[in-house]
Amino acid sequence: MKNSVKIALLGIGNVGSGVWEILERNHDRISKYTGVPIEVKRVLVRDVNKKRNVSVPADLLTASYADIVDDPEIKIVVELMGGLNPAYDYIKQAIENKKSVVTANKAVISHYGRELIELARRNQVELRFEGSVGGGIPIINTLNKSLAANEIDTIVGIINGTTNYILTQMTNQGVDFDTALKMAQQKGYAEADPSSDIDGEDAAFKLSILTFIAFGVQVPPQDIPREGITRISEKDIQYAAQLGYTIKLLATAKKHDGKLDLHVHPALVPNNHPLAAVNDEFNALFIKGDAIGEFMMYGKGAGSLPTGSAVMGDIMDIAAALPAGSPSKLNRLNGFDEDVERLKINGEGWGEYYIRLEVVDRPGVLGKISTALGNYEVSIASVVQRGRGERIVPLILITHRVEKRRLNQALEEIQEFDVVDEVASILRVEECSG
Amino acid sequence: MKNSVKIALLGIGNVGSGVWEILERNHDRISKYTGVPIEVKRVLVRDVNKKRNVSVPADLLTASYADIVDDPEIKIVVELMGGLNPAYDYIKQAIENKKSVVTANKAVISHYGRELIELARRNQVELRFEGSVGGGIPIINTLNKSLAANEIDTIVGIINGTTNYILTQMTNQGVDFDTALKMAQQKGYAEADPSSDIDGEDAAFKLSILTFIAFGVQVPPQDIPREGITRISEKDIQYAAQLGYTIKLLATAKKHDGKLDLHVHPALVPNNHPLAAVNDEFNALFIKGDAIGEFMMYGKGAGSLPTGSAVMGDIMDIAAALPAGSPSKLNRLNGFDEDVERLKINGEGWGEYYIRLEVVDRPGVLGKISTALGNYEVSIASVVQRGRGERIVPLILITHRVEKRRLNQALEEIQEFDVVDEVASILRVEECSG
Repeated sequence: MKNSVKIALLGIGNVGSGVWEILERNHDRISKYTGVPIEVKRVLVRDVNKKRNVSVPADLLTASYADIVDDPEIKIVVELMGGLNPAYDYIKQAIENKKSVVTANKAVISHYGRELIELARRNQVELRFEGSVGGGIPIINTLNKSLAANEIDTIVGIINGTTNYILTQMTNQGVDFDTALKMAQQKGYAEADPSSDIDGEDAAFKLSILTFIAFGVQVPPQDIPREGITRISEKDIQYAAQLGYTIKLLATAKKHDGKLDLHVHPALVPNNHPLAAVNDEFNALFIKGDAIGEFMMYGKGAGSLPTGSAVMGDIMDIAAALPAGSPSKLNRLNGFDEDVERLKINGEGWGEYYIRLEVVDRPGVLGKISTALGNYEVSIASVVQRGRGERIVPLILITHRVEKRRLNQALEEIQEFDVVDEVASILRVEECSG
Repeated sequence: MKNSVKIALLGIGNVGSGVWEILERNHDRISKYTGVPIEVKRVLVRDVNKKRNVSVPADLLTASYADIVDDPEIKIVVELMGGLNPAYDYIKQAIENKKSVVTANKAVISHYGRELIELARRNQVELRFEGSVGGGIPIINTLNKSLAANEIDTIVGIINGTTNYILTQMTNQGVDFDTALKMAQQKGYAEADPSSDIDGEDAAFKLSILTFIAFGVQVPPQDIPREGITRISEKDIQYAAQLGYTIKLLATAKKHDGKLDLHVHPALVPNNHPLAAVNDEFNALFIKGDAIGEFMMYGKGAGSLPTGSAVMGDIMDIAAALPAGSPSKLNRLNGFDEDVERLKINGEGWGEYYIRLEVVDRPGVLGKISTALGNYEVSIASVVQRGRGERIVPLILITHRVEKRRLNQALEEIQEFDVVDEVASILRVEECSG
């Protein structure tokens, strides 16, 4: 493909296949954003003959890094192998060969981030690592760009999905640690050897990277005091709940009085704190900056597509700047999507509704009303009737998904019933598929 | 000042004074980020002689826009006046004079965003508007850059702080609407004439802008069906709570089957949904994208410093690209802060701790233990003792802020007491100053 930005993927495992899938599925959107298509020219693997789930054409595969690092056409190297070696060497070589690098490698960045960024600057290329912390949550670019005017004093994060999933099951299902760990392994949220996650090591890598971008200090992960979740018992979780707290594994960086408190620890979080509601495999970063105040981002901390989203964001930002060195703009608006232009703008469409009627306290009223609703294809999910020994009492209904237009017609009829005093409230119920 | 990026502020009111304060306070950080300092050369006001709280030097003030729009030195015009006129004209003129524009003006962008962005592109300058939606929450740049690879299908937002504050007081304090509105006005969260907020008009402006950036469709705010919160009663809030829901004013955009559902409505939000926990003047944007999945941002939706943070993020991004047209990089890491280099890296430092001891069920045990803790300056905030009629029973303590080192020393002594069977758990309590 002429006139495209050519990139190479190193590795086509979990994250690599997510990146590949997004590039295929959203090809047009991505091309409009960048100005030209992004083309994967090469994919580095260990064994070109191994059977794979993702359908990468065989002529893209190579087991030789020289095919990538020595190819002047390839402008961006996307390192998704993980681990220190040979990823660190490959990243260095790519930069020295004037190729920008996008990586999700927390080991390399937490140990060598500063050195590699300085190397990238000397070679006038970019090094980006959004995918190394927080999965899909764009915390790196938010700290770097959107919050650029802020002095940051606090970062508190739930940044390991394995341990958060385990703690959520212990809290909500009341199971013990070993049972919760097995549940996590069955769902693919924990490895066969889960020690890096449950001992807090993974969180320490990521906290090291956050500390670097927020405070400019590179602290080796092994220097961050840490404790994992293996000593948490269900009893602690219950007592914490009685006292109004939820136990989470927190990665914390707090700057004050010329000091930086850094640690990974289980902690009791007050139930009215936004972090208390972050459950299962979700991650969250809670930040305090001197202008923005309290700020939080929440999302999937792992997974091929969420991490792929973060990696793609970096790739697209670099690629968009490449042609003619133009600075990045509101590229999402490039070539307004004509399909979207033909979108029909609806008002409310379909939804679930809470309805409060004030009705005469007499037998048969509910039957009359639900029959009338049924005539308009409105079916009822829940009913609450609170007789108060008065003439007019509230009748509360929650419907299943209905077309609002039909519901309106039904209620116009119902409000004329002599047993109905008033259609007092109609409130949409926010649908929640999460 | 030679070698600086010269900007002009239009207006020095609420947001303008926030921008001014951030520029003064974080001057060095901002200069390092951009590469050169950012200098406010001119401030447009209606009355140069009016007494102001913020200390802008008199020679910067002007009541004549020509002093700004005709000055070739000024590269960025920051429009913070609000309202359609004359802001719309001033923005157009600045763009036609090859000046980039940063604005927080929801009225102008929701009505004229597409036209002005196309004008900016033709003139090869930038138009940015992070501050127009969600206060400090960087939703625009996140949708545009970090989530660029995603097809967005859902945006649900609590994007009006006035109504969210009112609903929170009605829910948590049990007060009626009129009382809650007065409380909001006293705190400065509601205007004397609050109708634009409580009728959902403000939210409709912002939803129009979000729809534009997420879906590429410009829908005039007046075309978005909306209902405010004036008909919500405390009864509805109570019944919703009994059913497991919280009432919020939601701005919703959902794309499906070639249609776009758009509306601003009060709605019941299930209590386990992240949006249910967003209270008081805070805002939140809940997004679904096809790669990232569920994602949420939470923060202060208004206020001079939070909105100033958003405006400054746009200013710094444009300014950083100006010298030599260099594309934006990880500029937050420019000139690693030497003060930060000298930061002392602490482990845990000070904190509050939850401690579970297993002790002999005998009078006087608590006294012995708290005396011992007191000897190490550890003071106790809460105690839970659950006698179970057994020999060894749990004793749970939560401390006030203590130095962990001292607490460790105390516990080493305590675990040797014959009445203490075990120091079973020590967990940090996350401090919460929100």
